[in-house]
Amino acid sequence: MPDTLTLVPDLVWLEDRFQPDVAVRLGADGRIAAIGPARDAADTEDLADDDAVLRLPGRALLPGFVNAHSHAFQRLIRGRTQWRPATGRHTDEDFWSWRGAMYGAALALEPEDVYHVARFCFLEMIRAGVTAVGEFHYLHHQPDGRPYADPNELAARVIAAAESLGFRIALLDVAYATGGIGRRLGDRQRRFRATSPEAYLDRTTALAESVAGSALATVGVAPHSVRAVPREWLPPIRAWAEAHDAPFHMHVAERPAEVDQCVEAYGLRPVELLAEDGLLDARLTAVHATHLTDREVALLGDAGATVCACPTTERDLGDGFLRGLDLLHAGAAIALGTDSHTSLDFLEEMRLVEYHERLNRLKRVVITDVVDDRRDVAPPLLRMATRAGARAIGIDAGRIEAGALADLVAIDLRHPSLAGWTPETLGAMIALSATPDVVCDAWIGGARRLEDRTHPLADEVTAAFRRVAAAARPLQG
Amino acid sequence: MPDTLTLVPDLVWLEDRFQPDVAVRLGADGRIAAIGPARDAADTEDLADDDAVLRLPGRALLPGFVNAHSHAFQRLIRGRTQWRPATGRHTDEDFWSWRGAMYGAALALEPEDVYHVARFCFLEMIRAGVTAVGEFHYLHHQPDGRPYADPNELAARVIAAAESLGFRIALLDVAYATGGIGRRLGDRQRRFRATSPEAYLDRTTALAESVAGSALATVGVAPHSVRAVPREWLPPIRAWAEAHDAPFHMHVAERPAEVDQCVEAYGLRPVELLAEDGLLDARLTAVHATHLTDREVALLGDAGATVCACPTTERDLGDGFLRGLDLLHAGAAIALGTDSHTSLDFLEEMRLVEYHERLNRLKRVVITDVVDDRRDVAPPLLRMATRAGARAIGIDAGRIEAGALADLVAIDLRHPSLAGWTPETLGAMIALSATPDVVCDAWIGGARRLEDRTHPLADEVTAAFRRVAAAARPLQG
Repeated sequence: MPDTLTLVPDLVWLEDRFQPDVAVRLGADGRIAAIGPARDAADTEDLADDDAVLRLPGRALLPGFVNAHSHAFQRLIRGRTQWRPATGRHTDEDFWSWRGAMYGAALALEPEDVYHVARFCFLEMIRAGVTAVGEFHYLHHQPDGRPYADPNELAARVIAAAESLGFRIALLDVAYATGGIGRRLGDRQRRFRATSPEAYLDRTTALAESVAGSALATVGVAPHSVRAVPREWLPPIRAWAEAHDAPFHMHVAERPAEVDQCVEAYGLRPVELLAEDGLLDARLTAVHATHLTDREVALLGDAGATVCACPTTERDLGDGFLRGLDLLHAGAAIALGTDSHTSLDFLEEMRLVEYHERLNRLKRVVITDVVDDRRDVAPPLLRMATRAGARAIGIDAGRIEAGALADLVAIDLRHPSLAGWTPETLGAMIALSATPDVVCDAWIGGARRLEDRTHPLADEVTAAFRRVAAAARPLQG
Repeated sequence: MPDTLTLVPDLVWLEDRFQPDVAVRLGADGRIAAIGPARDAADTEDLADDDAVLRLPGRALLPGFVNAHSHAFQRLIRGRTQWRPATGRHTDEDFWSWRGAMYGAALALEPEDVYHVARFCFLEMIRAGVTAVGEFHYLHHQPDGRPYADPNELAARVIAAAESLGFRIALLDVAYATGGIGRRLGDRQRRFRATSPEAYLDRTTALAESVAGSALATVGVAPHSVRAVPREWLPPIRAWAEAHDAPFHMHVAERPAEVDQCVEAYGLRPVELLAEDGLLDARLTAVHATHLTDREVALLGDAGATVCACPTTERDLGDGFLRGLDLLHAGAAIALGTDSHTSLDFLEEMRLVEYHERLNRLKRVVITDVVDDRRDVAPPLLRMATRAGARAIGIDAGRIEAGALADLVAIDLRHPSLAGWTPETLGAMIALSATPDVVCDAWIGGARRLEDRTHPLADEVTAAFRRVAAAARPLQG
C-alpha cells in the first residue's frame, strides 16, 4: 500500500459547498494529509514513489456519515414487529408493545448471533454511506442473566464485528439498572443488568482498556434513561466520561409516559433533572428528545448539548416529532441515528428533520440560516449527518480538512435521481431528493471499504446473517 | 416473440399475500392469461411450441405500481426550489413561492423539452416500479400563450414520451381558466388557458380520438381545482367523463388558502361544493385533500371516491398531513402519486401514509384491518400503490389475476434491505423498510421494460434530459 493516496473526484464538499478542482490526499496514518488543487495532484512529478493518485470521475466526495445512535441487534427484527398478534384486534400498538417484541429477540441471541447480526447491520450502514457508528449497547449478559466469563463478551463481539469490516465504532456502554423509576428490573431485562455504578464503571473501564490500541474502536458511557438508571448513578458516570474525555449519551424524553414518570418521581422533567444535576453541557447527547417544553429546549440549547434525532425509528414507533428548528435556534446541535434500523437510509434521516418541520408549519425551507448565513437547507442537514454526529460520538471526523480522520464517501453523480444537478443544487438534491444508492464508495481511516457499492466481505457477512435470521422464531403471530 | 410467456418467480403476490409455487402466464394480448401452479409451468411438455418459460429465481412478483398523480415536467426543477433568493432572508417560503419558481420552468419549455423531460421522468418511474401514470397535464400552449397548430401538441408529446418507453399513461387533460376564484388568469399561467368548457372538451375529445388505437394511452379529464375552474364548468366536464367512461381528477383542498377562498366565494368548502353539484362518486379522484373537515371526510367516504395522496410532494411543499385512517374508515379509497417528483421512490409514498398517522397519533400499526380482516399494514399500503391507483386512472391493472393487464414488477429478494425476510414479513418489509432499488424488473402490457434495473433506452433518454437541464437557467439565486 502506498504511503499516501490522493483522491481526485469531480467535486469535493469543502466549507459547506461542493467545489471542483480539489484533490484530497490521505495519509498513511488514516487521516487527511492535505487538501490541494486537483491540477497539482495530476502532476505526477510532484509525487513521491510511494504515492498514488485515484481519479474518481463522476463522483463527488463528502465526509462519511456518522450514525450517532444504533442498536445493531435490532436489525434482526426488521419487518417482524409490524403485525398485530393473530388473535384479537389490537388498536393499541405503540412503543411499549414494540419493546416487548424486541425483548423477545434480545433474549434469544447467543454471542455468535450478536456478532453476525451486528456485522450485517454495519455492512448495511457502510452501503448507506455511514463510516462510523455510536453503538448504544445494552445487551451484556447470558440469556439467563448471569454475566459471561468475560463480562464484556458481547460488547467485544460487537466491536469485533465492526473492526472485521474496517468500520469505525464508538461503543456506548449502557448502564441499565431499573425497570422504571424506583422499580426492580424486569425478568426480560435480565441481560442488561448493572448492579451498581461502581461495578458498571469497572466493566466499562476494562472495555476501554481493551480497545486502547484500536485504530477504529473507542468507548463512551450511556446511562440508558431516567427510567432505567437511578438518579444518583448519573454523577459518577458523568465523572467517568469527563476523566476519559468520552461521550455521554442518554435516551431522553422519547415517550410521554417517560416524562410523566420522571415528573411524578422527581418533580422534574428529564432535561430539567439533567440540568439540576449538572449533566447538561456539550458532552451530552440526548437521544430522541421528542417531548420537550420550551424551557427544556432552551436548557439544551444554552448548554450546547447535542440532540440525536432518529426520525425513521421515531416515525416507525410513533414517538412524535423533533422540535428541530427550535433546538437549532436555541443553540443545540442535532445529530442523526438509525436506532432500530427499521430502515437504513441515512439520506432519509436527514431529510425527515426538515420535512417534519415543513409539515407541521405548512412552510417550505424551514431549517436554513440557522448555523450561519449559508442559504440553502443542505448545509444544516449535511452538518447533522457529518460533523454533529462526529462530535456526538467523540471522533475527529465529519469534515474534509487536513488532520481529520479520512472517513469519506463518494456520491455517484451519474445516478438517475441526481440527473440535472448543478454544483449549487447538488447538496439539496442529495439531502432531499436522492435515493440512498447514490452512495457508491467509502473510505474509513483512509482505507477503501466500499467500491462501486460493494464491500469485499458482503457475501460472507450476508450469508451468516441470513442463517441467524432463518433460525430466529417469529416474534408474534 | 412467443405467443405466451410464463413467469416463474419464487413468490407471487396473490390475494394480498406472497405465495410460493405460482406461475403467471402472460398472453399475447398484453394481459395475464392464467395463474397456475409453478410445477405445471415447469413441465414443458404442456407448453405449445410458441410458449416460453422465464424462471426468476430470487424474485417476488407484485402488480406494478400505479402513479395516480404526476406533473412530469416538474422533474426539471428538482433541487432548484429549495433555496431562498440570494438577497434577503425569507422566512415565508411555502407552496405559493414554490409555484412561482415552478411557473418559471413551465414558461421556458419548448415541445422537444417537454418530450425529453417527461421521457426521463417516466424512465425514473419505471425504475421505481411504476408501470402506469396518471399525468395531470396542464401545459397546453406556446410560451407566448397562443395555441400550437395542433392544440394538443404538448399532450401528444407527453404521450409519445410514455409510449416510446413502453410505459402506460392516462393523460388527464387539465382545464385551467382562472387565476383564483372569479379572477382573470395570470400572465404566467398563459400556457394553461382554457377559454370555455366547450372549447376545452372539443380539444379533449380530439385528444381521446387520437389515442383510440393505442395499447398504452388513455385520456381522462381534470378540472384543475376550484381555484382555477369556474363552478359552472364542472358539470359539463363531469358529463364528458361519464359519456367516455373516463377518470375525473381534481386538486382538492391542498392548501388552507384554497379552502378559505372557496368558502368566501361559494359559502362551501371544496368537497361540500363537489357534493352539492353532484360530482362526488366513485369516478372522482380528489388529489391531495390535505385540509378536510370531518364532514368532508364522510362525504368522500360515502361516495366511495378516491383521494390521491402525494406525500413526498406534500411534505416538500409543506401542504400538511393526509387524514388517511379517517378516509379509509369512512369508505374512501387512497391512491398515491409522486406529483412534483421531488423524489421518485414509490415505497416512500406508501410508507408515509402509515408513518404520518403514527407520528400524529403516537401509535404503531395504524392503517390495518381497514379494508378487510388481513392483519398487517402491508396489504392496505400495497393496495394503495396498485389497485386503488389503477381504479383512479381507469385502467384494468393493479392486481395479479387472469384477465388483468400484465403490468408487473419483480422485487429482488437478495437485496440487503430485505435480508431476513419471510413470506409473512416480506410485504411489511417492502412497504416500510426496503430501499427503492429492490425493484429490479418490470413488465408493462406483458413486455419487459426493466431488466436488472435497466431500461434499454436509459442512456439515450438520460443524455437528452441532461441537455435540457443544462440549458435551463437557474430559477432563483
